[in-house]
Amino acid sequence: MTYCLGIITKHGLVMAADSRTNAGVDYVSTYQKLFDFSQPGERVILLCTAGNLSVTQGAIAQMHRDIRIPEEANLHTLPTLYDVARYIGAKIRQIQEQDRVWLKQDGIDVQCTLLLGGQIQGQPPELYMIYSQGNCIHATSETPFMQVGETKYGKPILDRILDFNTTLEAAAKCALLSIDSTMKSNISVGPPINLVVYEKDSFKVQHDLRLRLGAPYLTKIRKQWETSLREAFERMPDIDWERDTGGNVEEFLDP
Amino acid sequence: MTYCLGIITKHGLVMAADSRTNAGVDYVSTYQKLFDFSQPGERVILLCTAGNLSVTQGAIAQMHRDIRIPEEANLHTLPTLYDVARYIGAKIRQIQEQDRVWLKQDGIDVQCTLLLGGQIQGQPPELYMIYSQGNCIHATSETPFMQVGETKYGKPILDRILDFNTTLEAAAKCALLSIDSTMKSNISVGPPINLVVYEKDSFKVQHDLRLRLGAPYLTKIRKQWETSLREAFERMPDIDWERDTGGNVEEFLDP
Repeated sequence: MTYCLGIITKHGLVMAADSRTNAGVDYVSTYQKLFDFSQPGERVILLCTAGNLSVTQGAIAQMHRDIRIPEEANLHTLPTLYDVARYIGAKIRQIQEQDRVWLKQDGIDVQCTLLLGGQIQGQPPELYMIYSQGNCIHATSETPFMQVGETKYGKPILDRILDFNTTLEAAAKCALLSIDSTMKSNISVGPPINLVVYEKDSFKVQHDLRLRLGAPYLTKIRKQWETSLREAFERMPDIDWERDTGGNVEEFLDP
Repeated sequence: MTYCLGIITKHGLVMAADSRTNAGVDYVSTYQKLFDFSQPGERVILLCTAGNLSVTQGAIAQMHRDIRIPEEANLHTLPTLYDVARYIGAKIRQIQEQDRVWLKQDGIDVQCTLLLGGQIQGQPPELYMIYSQGNCIHATSETPFMQVGETKYGKPILDRILDFNTTLEAAAKCALLSIDSTMKSNISVGPPINLVVYEKDSFKVQHDLRLRLGAPYLTKIRKQWETSLREAFERMPDIDWERDTGGNVEEFLDP
C-alpha cells in the first residue's frame, strides 16, 4: 500500500508520500513515490504515485524520456498544468493498454492514481488528482487537500486542521502527522517519508525532506502527539448516563 | 454505510453503533444496529450488525423467533458464547443462501458482518466478530477491540488509547470519539449513536444510551476534542528543514 497527499493553500503547496510498497504481505520494499520534475525559475512540477508500481514507474520513465526529446510534448513544454495532468493520464493509459491483458489473466490489478502539484509561470499553483482511467480533477479552496492510496486513517486530522489559509509550515506538519497516523494503523504504509514544500510564485522547491525510520523529528512528533491525545482524552468530560442524551431519551433495546 | 465497534477489557464490554444506512447516496435512513438479547442474571448477549440490511434484519428476526420456540437452540439456551457465534453464523448463511441468486443477478451484495459481545454464567466475557461467511474470530487481551463497517477513520484513536486495562468509562468515551471522528469524515455514518456498557460478572447491562443528533454531550465532546487537537497541533515542534532527518539525509529528488 501507499499513502500520498497533496495540500494546496493560498500560500503554496505541500506534497508528501511514504515509501513502502508491497506485493502481498510477504514482499515489502521501499520505493520512492514523490518525484520532482521542476525547472527552477520556470515551472514547478511535483508528482506522487500510488497503485501498480510497474505502471507508475513506466509512466515516470516515459516522462523522463520525453523531456530529452525536444520535439515531444513533455513536462517542461506543456502550456498549462491541466495539459500536464492530461499528458500524464495519457501515459498511464498507454502503459495499461500494453499490459492489461497480460496482468488481467493472472488477476493483477493495473490501477494507479497520481497527484500532480505545481505552478507554471503566469499561472496560479494547482493540485490535480489523476485517476487510473487517465481523467483528472483539481483541488479547490473548499477542499484544499487530495489523498491517494491508504487515505482513511490520515483523513480526520486533515479534516480538522487544514483550510485554504493554513500556513505552509502548519500544512507540512499536518501532512507528517497524517502520514504518521496512517503508519501507526497500517503497516503497509512506512518510512522514509518524503515531504516537499513549495511557496507560491517562487518557482523553486523551498524544502525537501526525507525522514527515515527513527528520524528524531518523526520520533518526537509521534511521541508528543500521542501524549497530547492521551492528555486531551483524559480531560474529556464524563458521560452523563442518566441525562443529556439529546432530544428524547428513547428505550432502544429490544424487548 | 455503518460503523460498529466492540471493546473488551478486563473490566467488561463496551458496544457501540451508529444508525445510518444507505442504499446509494440518495436513499439514507436510520436503522438500529445494536441489539440486546440479554437475560438479566443469566447471560448478556449484545449484537451489532453491518452490511446487507435484509440479511441482518432477517437473522435478527429468526433469533427472536427461535427464542419463542422452547425446543429450538437459541440465544438463551446455547451453552457457550462460541456456540452463540456459530449459531448466528448459521442464520446468516441460511438467509444468504435463500437470497444470493436473486440478489446476485442484480449485482447486490449479500455481505454482512456482526459483532457479538457478552457473558454466560460461569464463563468469562467474550467478544466475537462473525464474518459474512458464517465463521468467526474472538478478541484477545492483545487486541481488545473489533470494528465492522467503516472502520478506518475511527481506528487511530482506538490504537492510541485502548488496552486491556482501560476502564469501562474511558473505553465508552473512546468509542464515542471514534464514532464521532468517523461521522466527521464519512457522511454515510451518522447519529443516533447507541452505546452499551457491561460490567464483567454483573449479568445485566449497566448503561445503555442513545445519543441523537445534537445531543449536548456529543456536541460538547466533539467541540472539546477539536479544540484540544488544534491546541495540541499548535504545540507541535517546528520542522527543522536543515537537519534532523534521521540517519543520512539523502537527496531523493530526481535529477
